Amino acid sequence: MVKTIEWVHGRVRMLDQSKLPLKVSYVICKDYRKVAEGIKKLWIRGAPAIGIAAAMGAALGAQKIKAKNFDEFFKALQPVFKDILSTRPTAVNIEWANNRMKNLLTANKNLTVPQLKALLIKEAKEILKEDIEINKAIGKWGERFIKNGDVIITHCNAGALATGGYGTATGPIRMAVQRGKKIKVIADETRPVLQGARLTAWELMKDKIPVTLIPDNTAGALMQRGEINLAIVGTDRTARNGDVANKIGTYPLAVLCKEHGIPFYVAAPLSSIDFSIPSGKFIPIEERDSKEVTNVFSCRIAPHGVKARNIAFDVTPAKYITAIITEKGAFKPKDLYKLQKNNINLDKIRVKH
Amino acid sequence: MVKTIEWVHGRVRMLDQSKLPLKVSYVICKDYRKVAEGIKKLWIRGAPAIGIAAAMGAALGAQKIKAKNFDEFFKALQPVFKDILSTRPTAVNIEWANNRMKNLLTANKNLTVPQLKALLIKEAKEILKEDIEINKAIGKWGERFIKNGDVIITHCNAGALATGGYGTATGPIRMAVQRGKKIKVIADETRPVLQGARLTAWELMKDKIPVTLIPDNTAGALMQRGEINLAIVGTDRTARNGDVANKIGTYPLAVLCKEHGIPFYVAAPLSSIDFSIPSGKFIPIEERDSKEVTNVFSCRIAPHGVKARNIAFDVTPAKYITAIITEKGAFKPKDLYKLQKNNINLDKIRVKH
Repeated sequence: MVKTIEWVHGRVRMLDQSKLPLKVSYVICKDYRKVAEGIKKLWIRGAPAIGIAAAMGAALGAQKIKAKNFDEFFKALQPVFKDILSTRPTAVNIEWANNRMKNLLTANKNLTVPQLKALLIKEAKEILKEDIEINKAIGKWGERFIKNGDVIITHCNAGALATGGYGTATGPIRMAVQRGKKIKVIADETRPVLQGARLTAWELMKDKIPVTLIPDNTAGALMQRGEINLAIVGTDRTARNGDVANKIGTYPLAVLCKEHGIPFYVAAPLSSIDFSIPSGKFIPIEERDSKEVTNVFSCRIAPHGVKARNIAFDVTPAKYITAIITEKGAFKPKDLYKLQKNNINLDKIRVKH
Repeated sequence: MVKTIEWVHGRVRMLDQSKLPLKVSYVICKDYRKVAEGIKKLWIRGAPAIGIAAAMGAALGAQKIKAKNFDEFFKALQPVFKDILSTRPTAVNIEWANNRMKNLLTANKNLTVPQLKALLIKEAKEILKEDIEINKAIGKWGERFIKNGDVIITHCNAGALATGGYGTATGPIRMAVQRGKKIKVIADETRPVLQGARLTAWELMKDKIPVTLIPDNTAGALMQRGEINLAIVGTDRTARNGDVANKIGTYPLAVLCKEHGIPFYVAAPLSSIDFSIPSGKFIPIEERDSKEVTNVFSCRIAPHGVKARNIAFDVTPAKYITAIITEKGAFKPKDLYKLQKNNINLDKIRVKH
């Protein structure tokens, strides 16, 4: 399986996904600013992968800090956290990774600065490892909703490339294949940045999982023909009430699923659920450069001077979502908030299938 | 206003829309096969424009025929009709144009072959002229549904470029502007062939009508924000029961409109209504080369060897359509079949606003 991001010999090695599928090239980041640039320019994307990149970026930034004690070290690290956070306003995982690193440090004030630096590297590697385990757990819970022979539609890329490996939305797909189910995947190309065409199609083909690419506007016609059995997508950020912010085009897909009685699942590691946000309308939505719409790679597709909107995400209200699949099980969106409690009996609220 | 197709000095002059918006170039067709090639390769597209091209193609093909009498002439013309018809299976307007030319000929058996040839040229020019008049009538009936300040979404290009001029879906838009209403247009880019980005945006900008380009998957987010007031699209072929076949992506747009309580109008010249087809499921749907999906112009966007579907049209069931706007007025889809009758009182079934 392809490695999206790795810590190699004191540096961060990142697959430059913006060049896929035609070119497989890696960026070696010696400075945390390079990691931040990678997040901003979509060399690395996908909520969990961004979280890992943020952690590795912080660990990398920490190594260059000259500090005598914890307080100096912690203070000097703040601009690093801040720079990384500013790259993608919608990505809750950056904040999550930052907080995890900060909490780890404050819990280890007694250590020397070299020890703290080593600790951050260890933690970043641990976050990567955990992420893969989380995705496999999502896979395990989610594959129960997939029947032998099913055709699954997915949007954007919430695959191995969007994570440390295995993928969130592709978790159940990979697990179903692993368990011998014959399935097919329909990949929305996902304009404007074409993550479906460039990344999902690429990673599934690489692992010999049957995939068919369609323009985003074709899902409806396939559903009318009865050619789609279920949808599984990822999430950039999920609110406490189960509203899901994900790549633009997720919401229309969910509406079509509802219209056709097709189950619509969201694969969401707990790190992507923001319990502090009551509903989707409070999730900030990034608008990106309109050039991504008026150009495809180097090809200009629209008249010069045309106005264009590039809304990067949309919010799918909880009512369209059959279940949210986490590493702890699949839950109805309305039950999601219960996961905050420690003493909850998960078995009682898990969605059966 | 740009001229999509014209009869000039015994030849057919066709704007090569496949090169828009970056290059404005014309093809001079001396042979009907060039016209057919133009229809097949989307140099000219849009149901009404294709009908005009078919008529001009037949007139062009007729000029080279060597025949002594009507019967010989009529027989020799059949392969011309057939070749042109074979270019686009979904386009009812080709059949419509062919039949009109055939009927004209059989009604004028008494004429000499040179007279018949001249008659076909005259008729082809007449079809072009009528088409523009029809679109203005659609504009007149349709603009009543547009309020001052409205934002109108459209899909694909059912504009001046898709017709002899003025456009079907753009008819009401142009008429509203002409009557002083301040409106804005949202143009779906319309993957895979990008008629919205390349053509609708171009022709509206040319005529200074405010237009904003979006990826097809962005309409849902704008509707959620309350930024769209109504939708007007064209149609490739409409069935007797009011089901509408139009460019892929029309159906999901209609579903989103229903979900948001947004009126969804179809601008349909009577020539695009096929009363012989009882419902949408009998409309043949063209699947085109998957290269249109895996490539954008010369840019490869997907992995080599990937499977892709390129379903060119979808069917929007009548229940999603607020009204079908024709040159005789706007009608509920369920009343459409009544237009077949000659003695109907149209005022009684027209949709009021």
